[in-house]
This record gives sequence, structure tokens and C-alpha cells, in this order.
Amino acid sequence: MSNLFDERMAALTAEHEGLIQAKNEPVLPGNGIYTKWTNPVVTAAHAPLHWRYDLNPETNPFLMERIGVNAALNPGAIEFNGKICLMVRTEGSDRKSFFAVAESDNGADNFRFWDKPVVMPETDRPDTNVYDMRLIKHEDGWIYGLFCTERKDPSAPEHDTSIAEAQNAIARTKDLVNWERLDDLKTPSPQQRNCVLHPEFVDGKYAFYTRPQDGFIDCGSGGGIGWGLADDIEHAVIPEETIIDEKVYHTIKEVKNGAGCVPIKTDEGWLHIVHGVRGCAAGLRYIIYAFMTELERPWVPKYTPGGALIVPEGEERVGDVSNVVFTNGAVVRGDEVFIYYASSDTRCHVATSTLAQLVDYCKNAPVDPLRSAACVQQRMELIDRNLKLMK
Amino acid sequence: MSNLFDERMAALTAEHEGLIQAKNEPVLPGNGIYTKWTNPVVTAAHAPLHWRYDLNPETNPFLMERIGVNAALNPGAIEFNGKICLMVRTEGSDRKSFFAVAESDNGADNFRFWDKPVVMPETDRPDTNVYDMRLIKHEDGWIYGLFCTERKDPSAPEHDTSIAEAQNAIARTKDLVNWERLDDLKTPSPQQRNCVLHPEFVDGKYAFYTRPQDGFIDCGSGGGIGWGLADDIEHAVIPEETIIDEKVYHTIKEVKNGAGCVPIKTDEGWLHIVHGVRGCAAGLRYIIYAFMTELERPWVPKYTPGGALIVPEGEERVGDVSNVVFTNGAVVRGDEVFIYYASSDTRCHVATSTLAQLVDYCKNAPVDPLRSAACVQQRMELIDRNLKLMK
Repeated sequence: MSNLFDERMAALTAEHEGLIQAKNEPVLPGNGIYTKWTNPVVTAAHAPLHWRYDLNPETNPFLMERIGVNAALNPGAIEFNGKICLMVRTEGSDRKSFFAVAESDNGADNFRFWDKPVVMPETDRPDTNVYDMRLIKHEDGWIYGLFCTERKDPSAPEHDTSIAEAQNAIARTKDLVNWERLDDLKTPSPQQRNCVLHPEFVDGKYAFYTRPQDGFIDCGSGGGIGWGLADDIEHAVIPEETIIDEKVYHTIKEVKNGAGCVPIKTDEGWLHIVHGVRGCAAGLRYIIYAFMTELERPWVPKYTPGGALIVPEGEERVGDVSNVVFTNGAVVRGDEVFIYYASSDTRCHVATSTLAQLVDYCKNAPVDPLRSAACVQQRMELIDRNLKLMK
Repeated sequence: MSNLFDERMAALTAEHEGLIQAKNEPVLPGNGIYTKWTNPVVTAAHAPLHWRYDLNPETNPFLMERIGVNAALNPGAIEFNGKICLMVRTEGSDRKSFFAVAESDNGADNFRFWDKPVVMPETDRPDTNVYDMRLIKHEDGWIYGLFCTERKDPSAPEHDTSIAEAQNAIARTKDLVNWERLDDLKTPSPQQRNCVLHPEFVDGKYAFYTRPQDGFIDCGSGGGIGWGLADDIEHAVIPEETIIDEKVYHTIKEVKNGAGCVPIKTDEGWLHIVHGVRGCAAGLRYIIYAFMTELERPWVPKYTPGGALIVPEGEERVGDVSNVVFTNGAVVRGDEVFIYYASSDTRCHVATSTLAQLVDYCKNAPVDPLRSAACVQQRMELIDRNLKLMK
């Protein structure tokens, strides 16, 4: 029996190390705006063996998985102690998510989870599920984690086992290990998801990007990326919420949209890399788009390139929730930008670019003219200029 | 900087030409009714570089994509000047579609887009989106394009950004470049999609296959393939609409169905290659089926083989809208038939057959008996005949 155990242990370790240590390669030539990479950077299979298996041959002679990990998705991202750290939404085989840090030197491969996942304190109102943390290095000196806390909707009928309520939770840390949980964000909207804390004070206040919504999935009369200020972060209340980027008919953000990565400060404004959703006969389709806001007034759009920046391609198209790419974390190292995104609620990827390229994209990719004929006109102007050059 | 530009230009050009010039191979032995081919015939990546990139190194030093193409789908098809021309629904990364011609000598590979997309005139009521053109060589001497025009439903509430209205647009041309836009088709149905113009006059009138529907996605009390006559094509009005092929419970056309290619005239009647839709836990599933109508009365079904003709297989299954095959274009060359279809709203394929095979299929594949036990009985008769032969 111990032969079986030892053989499985050797095979599992070799497989796990092989996965973690695999070198990643860029997919070239790409579209020039960013570069996707061949392998996902973190997957469920990256979760340490000692999180999943009872490693005692006495109590687990078959070396069977005891607490499985189903998916690794929607990572927050931060540079910390010279490493790129992802705060991965780690989803157990029981569907509950928790947070865990995976770190890498180069940001493109060799991501390895820390020895233990995050133990996140709770408020008086226990979380049923937590996910999609944004990691914000705020100028007040703290690292904040903003994430969704989900609980059964208390107003749902007893027999309805699927009506949930989403709110935005806030916690802070200095080391990504020890966390102080603060009050959930209060806003004028009945529910919140996909909130991001602006990394700088605005008028001496904490500034939030929000995503008001009437229901758990349907944004209803809400939707769009909102903006609001709170006096206090420990008991954050946003009295007034303004939509700064609306959902729009027949665009890549027709059904809903929401903030993604923490806005990136550039010489020409704040760079936002966010998500948009449309409906189709196969359900919702999530894509990633980008825009920039003014440097001094981060709530005022400045460059709004039309269409999607990143869409699901190849194996990214299929997963636990297919037809999805989603981002809530990016890291800037010098001029280089690492955009972390998950595909189809299943695995984490990186797309690399530079500040110069992403700003150029935001400035020069044209605004969506919202109608087919106008889109053709826009394209014909490009084509005519090119045809002249090509002669 | 121009090094980067030149290197990317060389790499992009090599990749693009490699894609276009790749030889296609039939997938044999197949089912004998038709033959699928290994590669898609047109994809988003077939779109010319000069449609997507600003090719001026001064204004685009990183050689980044400026106006992306997201998908190439649902092509109308026609033989024109000895070439097979596809009128591709080309979808930008901004989700708006437009029409563009890609041509090939052999119909199976080396499809290359013309230098510019189609500039389609509009009516007084601007189109938000246009797509899924049927190309009809009518006996009146014109080539007609019938396509869907989509606009925001004027009766939708302000905050609802996704309720649309579909109508059938009509345009005509002699050269596929210069188009005259006519009035949208008027029918008794509140909305229309998937309309096809019969290529011959019927009782001296223009004859249409229609697909009445109450809403944009739901056909409601509508559905089925309709038939109606219009006195005038410039201001086409169908006063009366008759359903000639209904949706039916627990068939491949349970939720809705609609016309596809322009009907093909054969000695034994008109061959229709159309689509059927059923619902499932992952959304709608679109397949292609066929039937034939009488030669003299094209609205009267003559042969109605049961079940699907073409279903999504392998890589066809997944795309922007998964679980879909859809056809709106076929070309007859001698006895050979090229059926163009898109998979999962993402890419265009060809299936090749002959008139003799498709007519044989329609006559000899049995009618759907609508119940499991009857289907078994039908199959047992085939099996018993075969077992006798095999002895």
C-alpha cells in the first residue's frame, strides 16, 4: 500500500513542479497593443498539494484528494517585496472562493502559491462567498483589498436557493497576510460589485469606482461604472454616486460594465482596464476594454477607444462560465504593464504591454461611432489613407 | 523605432498570407451527403491588414491594430465574374457588423477580401447594425441583397440598453460594389429577420420567404418560415403571410426556424437549406436542415427529411455565440453545390455536395416521426433490411 502512496506522491510532485516551472512564451506577432502568452499563469492545478491532499499514508493510503480546488481566477495584482503577487480567487470544489497569494519573479511564469491561503476576518454579517479582490496601494500607506461579499438575499423566499446579494467588502493589510476587515461599503445602490478604490485621495477623501446594480446578476436600472467619495475608510459611506461610463446599446458593454484593475497613473491621465458584457443566444459574453480619465479629475473620461481590448480566444473561450475574460489586477514595472485576466472563470492569464502602447491605444483607436454605417466610414478613412501609402 | 515597425510588418504579412494561401482539404469519408473541409474558409484574421492597422510608421510607430475585426460570419454567396464571392458579415471589435466581399477561384480556399468593404446606403431610419445578407440573382436582372437591419426598439425603456428591433432591409446592385437601398420590407409581423427573396417571379410578383417574430430574440406567436408576395420591390409590402414550415415540439426546430440560403432550383423542386433552433441549459442551439418545395408552387413542401443536415462539430462548437451553425449562402457550379455556413458566430466554413446528392437526401432520408418509439420503429426497418443484406 505504501508503494501506491509513494508512487502517487512522486508522480503528483513531478506533475505539479513541471506545471509551475514551465517556461512561458509570448504569442507573436499579436496585435501590437499587447501580447498574450501561451500558458495560463495560474490554474487550479497550481494549488499546493498540501492544500488538497492528506499527506499522511496512515490516514490516506490511496493518496486521494481530500479538499479539491476547482478553479483559480480573477486575481488582484500588486508588486510586493520585488515580486509580482497575485491575489487569486481560489475556488474549492465546493464552489466557495477564498483568497491566496501566488508570487513570481518575472510575472509571466513560475507563479507559486504561498504556504497558506489568506484568512480573511469577517464583519458581523458573515460572508457566504468572497471573490474578485482589487489590491490598492493607497497613498495613506495601507494596502487595501476591495472584494465582493455575497450572502443569500434576506428578502428572498425560503424556497429560492439562488437569490443572492452582492456588496463591496473592504479590508486592509501591510503584508498581504494579516488583514483588518473594515465595514462594507455603503452606497445609494441596493447592491454593489466590482468596486475599486482610487489609489490617491481626491479632495482629501477616499474615492471609489462603483458598479450600482438593482439585483445580483441584472444591473437593472443601474449598470455603468460609478464614482463616489467617502470621508472615512473604516466606515465608508458614499452619499452620492455618479455614472462616469455608461452601458450603451449595441456595444461591447450593452448589458453591463464595471471597473477592473486599479487605475494606472500615466503622464496623460488615469488608465482604466475594465470589463463590458453583452448578451447573446448562449448567455452573457464578457470582454475587457480600456479608457482613460483626466489626471486631475479621475472621474472625467478623456480617451475612450471603441470596442474591446481583450476578448476570449482559443482555449480561453471555454470554462466553468464560458465566453468570459475578466480582469481585476495589473502591475506596472518601469514602463512594462502586466495585465492579469481570467478566462471563463477557470484560469489566470497575463497579457503584457507598455504604458506607451496602452496610452497610444487609448488616444488613437477611434471612438465607437455606434452605427454600422458610421463604423464603415471610420474604417474607410483608415483604408483610404493606407491605400495611398501602399501605392 | 522603424525596426520594430518593419519587423512587425514582415511578421504580420507573413502570417496573413500564410493563412489566406493555405490549401484546404476535404474531411473524408464524411457522411456521403456533403463534405466538410478542414479549415474555415474566411475568418476575422482574413481581414486585410490595411483595414485594421494604420500602416504609417509616423503615426503608428508600434504598428498596433487601430480598428480590430472580431469575427467573420454568416456570408451570403454568389458566383460573380467566374469567382465565388462571399458577402461576409464582418464584425468589428466594436460589435458593429458590415458587409465585405471575399472571393476565391475554387470556393474552398484562397478567399481574399476585396480592397474595400461595402458602403451600404441607409434609409431615412438609420441602421444601428446590419448583417446576414442573402444574395439573390433575380430574374428581373438585379442582384438583391436582403439583410437584417437592427435598431434600438423605440418602445424600450430608457435604461434598457439591449431591447432591439429587427427588420428586413432590401438593397440591389449590379456589381456588388454600388448599392441602391430600397425600403425595408413591410409585413404583418412586428419584426422580421432571415428573409429571402425567391429568385423568380410568382404570379408576376416578388415572392419572399419570411420569418415573422413578435420580439427581437423570441419569435413568440410567430416563428416558422413564412411566405408572401409583394407587388413592388422598391416599396415592398407583403399584405398576407402564410407559414409554410412550422416550428414543432421536440424537433431540431422546436424554438424557432428560418430561411437560409436562396432556394436552389432542381428538376424535382426547390431545395431549401435553412436553420432550426432549440433551447438547452447552455442557451440556444442552431443547426442546419433542408427540405424541398414544389417546382411550380415553391411554397408547398414536397420532401421534408427529418432531423439536421449540418450540426456544429469539433472546433465549430465554440465561438462568440457557441453551439451554432448557420447558413445564408450557397453557390451551384454545374452539379456541384457549395454550402457556406458559419460556426458559433465566429468563422465561415464550406460544405460541398452535389445537386444529385442533396435531392437524393431530401427524398430518401425519412420524415421525423416525432416520437421516440416511432423513431426506433423507423430505424428497425432500416436495420432489418440491412441485416438481411449482410447475411
